[in-house]
Amino acid sequence: MTDNDTTYEPLDTASLPTRLGRIKAVTDRLGDDISQWNADEVGDGNLNLVFIVKSPKSSIIVKQALPYVRLVGDSWPLPLTRAFFEYHALIRQADRDPGMVPEIYHFDEQQALIVMEFLSPHIILRQSLIKGDHTEGLANALGLFAARTLFRGSDLSMDAMERKADLALFAGNGELCDITENLVFSDPYFDAEMNQHNTPQLDGIVARLRADIDLKVEVQHLKSKFCNNAETMLHGDLHTGSVMVTGDDARVIDPEFVTYGPIGFDVGMMLSNFLMAFYAQPGHADKPGGRDDYQDWILGLVNDIWATFAAEFSRLWRTERTGILYQKTLYEDQGHAIASEQALGQRLNAIWQDTLGFAGVEMHRRILGLAHNADFETITDEDLRATCETGALELGRQLIINRKQLSTMNAVLDLARTIQQETQA
Amino acid sequence: MTDNDTTYEPLDTASLPTRLGRIKAVTDRLGDDISQWNADEVGDGNLNLVFIVKSPKSSIIVKQALPYVRLVGDSWPLPLTRAFFEYHALIRQADRDPGMVPEIYHFDEQQALIVMEFLSPHIILRQSLIKGDHTEGLANALGLFAARTLFRGSDLSMDAMERKADLALFAGNGELCDITENLVFSDPYFDAEMNQHNTPQLDGIVARLRADIDLKVEVQHLKSKFCNNAETMLHGDLHTGSVMVTGDDARVIDPEFVTYGPIGFDVGMMLSNFLMAFYAQPGHADKPGGRDDYQDWILGLVNDIWATFAAEFSRLWRTERTGILYQKTLYEDQGHAIASEQALGQRLNAIWQDTLGFAGVEMHRRILGLAHNADFETITDEDLRATCETGALELGRQLIINRKQLSTMNAVLDLARTIQQETQA
Repeated sequence: MTDNDTTYEPLDTASLPTRLGRIKAVTDRLGDDISQWNADEVGDGNLNLVFIVKSPKSSIIVKQALPYVRLVGDSWPLPLTRAFFEYHALIRQADRDPGMVPEIYHFDEQQALIVMEFLSPHIILRQSLIKGDHTEGLANALGLFAARTLFRGSDLSMDAMERKADLALFAGNGELCDITENLVFSDPYFDAEMNQHNTPQLDGIVARLRADIDLKVEVQHLKSKFCNNAETMLHGDLHTGSVMVTGDDARVIDPEFVTYGPIGFDVGMMLSNFLMAFYAQPGHADKPGGRDDYQDWILGLVNDIWATFAAEFSRLWRTERTGILYQKTLYEDQGHAIASEQALGQRLNAIWQDTLGFAGVEMHRRILGLAHNADFETITDEDLRATCETGALELGRQLIINRKQLSTMNAVLDLARTIQQETQA
Repeated sequence: MTDNDTTYEPLDTASLPTRLGRIKAVTDRLGDDISQWNADEVGDGNLNLVFIVKSPKSSIIVKQALPYVRLVGDSWPLPLTRAFFEYHALIRQADRDPGMVPEIYHFDEQQALIVMEFLSPHIILRQSLIKGDHTEGLANALGLFAARTLFRGSDLSMDAMERKADLALFAGNGELCDITENLVFSDPYFDAEMNQHNTPQLDGIVARLRADIDLKVEVQHLKSKFCNNAETMLHGDLHTGSVMVTGDDARVIDPEFVTYGPIGFDVGMMLSNFLMAFYAQPGHADKPGGRDDYQDWILGLVNDIWATFAAEFSRLWRTERTGILYQKTLYEDQGHAIASEQALGQRLNAIWQDTLGFAGVEMHRRILGLAHNADFETITDEDLRATCETGALELGRQLIINRKQLSTMNAVLDLARTIQQETQA
């Protein structure tokens, strides 16, 4: 782990103190006495090794990529370069929305390893939503994060040459994109090998969705947008498992799926995971109706995340529109501020439609594809779980098919509730 | 010009035989006796040096980039790397539509120099249209070229990792993109420094267009698509000055503006330049009405280029759809061939709308911006020229604003004729 330690080798809890004890950025935090360090491997994601390393002085996180997909094993190789892309995403996100991502202490490209801030007492938001906990300011933090990172990584804001350089840089993250392209946008819509779903309870609706030609056409239009419409630097995996919370703090982690893509993808994935949390609540209630208020809180979050996103995006549009698109030279400087507002409204509307579509696809792939959500998976009653999942599947289809007609958030939330009532009747 | 000759130096007619006489690919064609070679500089474009080099044995073209914009001078530097991107575009186009671009004999990255096939007796299509000449098979050749290069450079066809590598590669051509971004999509719509237009005859309509907020919003939506929607490898400058013709042959040259962008950009620029040729004809007639039949032929070309493009794109969709979008796995293999056709129709409709929009922008920038067309510029009667230009400006606005309502080519051609009658009345 010195400059000469160039051969990649996965860390383990035994070797970690010795290997990281030579890095000043680490010893600055944990102290020089590595005998006092304690490393635990806590990775519960699908891809990587994650260690919490504690000393009497402090604690840090060490995240190291493995040369394969952890969820599947070494039969599915995955390049170590994803740590490089995650690092580059993190430093850009830190710049674009300061304080919202973990501070980075050290990056070792050869070891595919990022040493970063240990967030404590944070837990994964998805777990918090399963438990029924609240986080004050959550919608505000996530709405601002989305607006700031997505606006500031785009041609609305960046120097055009720098954006093209970043586009080229992150185009190198193709193997991670490939996962999204296949597991999100294709596999769920046919009987692909790695798919799984709650059987036999969902067999009927799964067959119906996979025979739905309109749905399968719209999803591929959305896939085209994801693959080709390189509007901004996406987090790429912005779900409730990529957010850590306390009662009053929220931070975003794990942008290794970073790629240039459409603004609505990140926003849609985020809203989708809250909507799935909404549908999953009856499975976590200690008595019927026991999570009704909490469901209201979740739908309120969906409403407020979008509202905050739209407000902040609009503020940035008016104050930081320094890129090559919709230039002030053409609008405000010509006395045509109204053109700027007209364009803003139309762009927000387009982002809204994309958001709904991507939200729908995310709901489908989390129930029909390979990578499922703890929200549903932790419901032990298979029939109740199927009821919850059915609601999400139905809403997903509505969001995809009718995204251009669902013009307000109220319409979406009413639809979510109606579908829940119908599926649980 | 040997392997050791690594310092860039512009060629001139005197030095050219000595410098290229050391290259086997050149002497294979022209022979070893350089005293028999004769070089003429014939570059009439805006950017580069172009030499025809003849010997008793054969003839070749030598195209060399200059480190600045030739049209403007060394006050506007432009990187030599554009020759590298042109070379990479040419070899891909040759692969995707064999025989339609000049054969390359030699590429020297350091000297920013491409030695290629001398097309003879070809002339620039724009000159041919000014003269009133016909080329048999022209619409077919151009429609096929557009469909084949644009389909085969996209995620509809390519391996996803290869497309991402090409996306990254051509993202390096940013300075050339910058010209398009500014000179096509922004400058024409305000009083930018480098603009020029036929004064004072056009002052009224120019002021009207530059005060048209709806127009200025739509054009920026189109600019967003050009900058962000990286569907395929574009030629990037596919106008009638980038096509060489005889009475029965057509070839496409000069793809140095290559970039990943929306399919409709190339198609729209092509159709636009024919529509401008249509409007310019009265300025080239030897008597009133003397070009009426020729105008019909040009509008027929516009119709047939689109029809050929759409037919070939559909054929490739059905037979070569091997990419990650709209996969056969999801459609045909599930007995859902109808989904494939539904998606094709919707994608063609979206390309059509983009095509009209980009065509409109191209018409505006060629009359209001820096780089004008010989079609209009060679009309010596300024009033007549203004009448022709006004027709094109009006059609351009219609194509941009109403591109989603103009659903058939007949509607577009009827509109083109109506506008001509009104402006010439």
